Amino acid sequence: MNISIIGLGLIGGSIALDLRESGFATNLIGVDQNHEHCQQALKLGLVDHISVWPQAVKESDLVILAIPVNAIVHLLPELMSHIGDRTTVTDMGSTKAQITACLIPSTRAHSRRGQFVASHPMAGTEHSGPTAALRGLFVGRTAVICDQHDSHPRDLKRIEELYQVLKMRLVYMSSQEHDLHAAYVSHLSHISSFVLANTVLGLEKNVGTIFDLAGGGFESTVRLAKSSPEMWAPIFEQNREHVVEALSAYIDELEAFRESLVSKDFAQTKSFMQEANHIRRVLEKMHGVAK
Amino acid sequence: MNISIIGLGLIGGSIALDLRESGFATNLIGVDQNHEHCQQALKLGLVDHISVWPQAVKESDLVILAIPVNAIVHLLPELMSHIGDRTTVTDMGSTKAQITACLIPSTRAHSRRGQFVASHPMAGTEHSGPTAALRGLFVGRTAVICDQHDSHPRDLKRIEELYQVLKMRLVYMSSQEHDLHAAYVSHLSHISSFVLANTVLGLEKNVGTIFDLAGGGFESTVRLAKSSPEMWAPIFEQNREHVVEALSAYIDELEAFRESLVSKDFAQTKSFMQEANHIRRVLEKMHGVAK
Repeated sequence: MNISIIGLGLIGGSIALDLRESGFATNLIGVDQNHEHCQQALKLGLVDHISVWPQAVKESDLVILAIPVNAIVHLLPELMSHIGDRTTVTDMGSTKAQITACLIPSTRAHSRRGQFVASHPMAGTEHSGPTAALRGLFVGRTAVICDQHDSHPRDLKRIEELYQVLKMRLVYMSSQEHDLHAAYVSHLSHISSFVLANTVLGLEKNVGTIFDLAGGGFESTVRLAKSSPEMWAPIFEQNREHVVEALSAYIDELEAFRESLVSKDFAQTKSFMQEANHIRRVLEKMHGVAK
Repeated sequence: MNISIIGLGLIGGSIALDLRESGFATNLIGVDQNHEHCQQALKLGLVDHISVWPQAVKESDLVILAIPVNAIVHLLPELMSHIGDRTTVTDMGSTKAQITACLIPSTRAHSRRGQFVASHPMAGTEHSGPTAALRGLFVGRTAVICDQHDSHPRDLKRIEELYQVLKMRLVYMSSQEHDLHAAYVSHLSHISSFVLANTVLGLEKNVGTIFDLAGGGFESTVRLAKSSPEMWAPIFEQNREHVVEALSAYIDELEAFRESLVSKDFAQTKSFMQEANHIRRVLEKMHGVAK
């Protein structure tokens, strides 16, 4: 299959590796605004050649958008008007409502809506760029497909096969449901980590002290604070309402925790932690399936 | 050397493994209130035999307290009055100010203050009990020794050797400094994680949805939420003032982040994340030394 990957970063690069190895892709065309990323992707063997998107999509059976979510919204309507009848388009964005909404009625793009499948493979690391690409990044993780009834059965099937090749578990929900749940489970985690880093860096002007005192716990909790602001700012912008709601819930819970300390109600402090321990069940279930 | 380890959990058990393997311990005596933990520790070969503390400390050159910080404050003064002239005592508690303060003047215990070395090996996992013990848990991590001038040189040297055997980096500071920095770098990480778990569990009544949507990011950020409430409640109680201060700073930063979203000042949102990215330097430095 001829496949174009638009965006040769961590996600696009990792998909390229697995699609080539599995034989699902026979020809991989890479597109990226960043010239250095294009050269790295060629050098690393992620793609067979580099092109620009209007030409790449014409030659492709499948087009994968692995660019920041604001760039997807910007590009998708015009891109859909350039594809042929037998081309399927999917995106890997971390938001879904604004992306599906950008294919509005009364444009040429809308007439191709059925050839687009909105999806989100829930995997990643805190690193960026083609050199961050990893084999098997997606194995055992979940791929969400949104609003599947808006896609033609043939195109939907092609994207389901794509994720099966990547060895992902498929889950279906509406774009709205996706964005609500992603705000709590993924986007809030990133904010808690970014802000924890800011708080500690703000107090500990002497970076050496953080380094001296950081056990394994600190490291795992702030790992996501290394994530790309260019990728995350548009996600928070597009999913602003749900993210603000999730963040407000988090702040409320933190204030309740603080109040238990201020009022010396340590039985309550302990009770909060005992409730939090229930997260074990979720993580154990994840490990049971994923590894 | 005859060594008593009081508290056969993750920390006590892991130290036992490394002290035996290195030959630093020739005889390891285990003490734990939990009968099952004693049996597990014997079965796993962590210690040579089980005893009760008044007897164990009489037979030991070195006594290591690896119990929750409230239990240390409760036990330490009485324990110090039972040791002989050539016995050194150290503790592994995550707070230091209340522990050093419990050896107050005018008690018999105080006359032994010089034989006590207040310390904190900054390492751990989210698991508990003797079965969580790991070989090499401490390698490359930092051990903090507090108020070293209050310890006799001979006893201080013995504890420095202990941590060198565990392959740890030694850092010295006052108990007060330790507790302030630990609040930001370690204790706050745990609260952010416990409360993130509570927030997500509170919204996502259907645990399956968390499971479906949790990428690698969520997992690392909530890992510490599995930690033991029995161990952590006394830490937050003893270090209450610093922890409240750190938590308040964290809440303030979260509110500023939320405000950038509410007011649609996404340049500010991005700027917060760019600042947070500086944590890379700290983590890279840690990896450079630790691994």
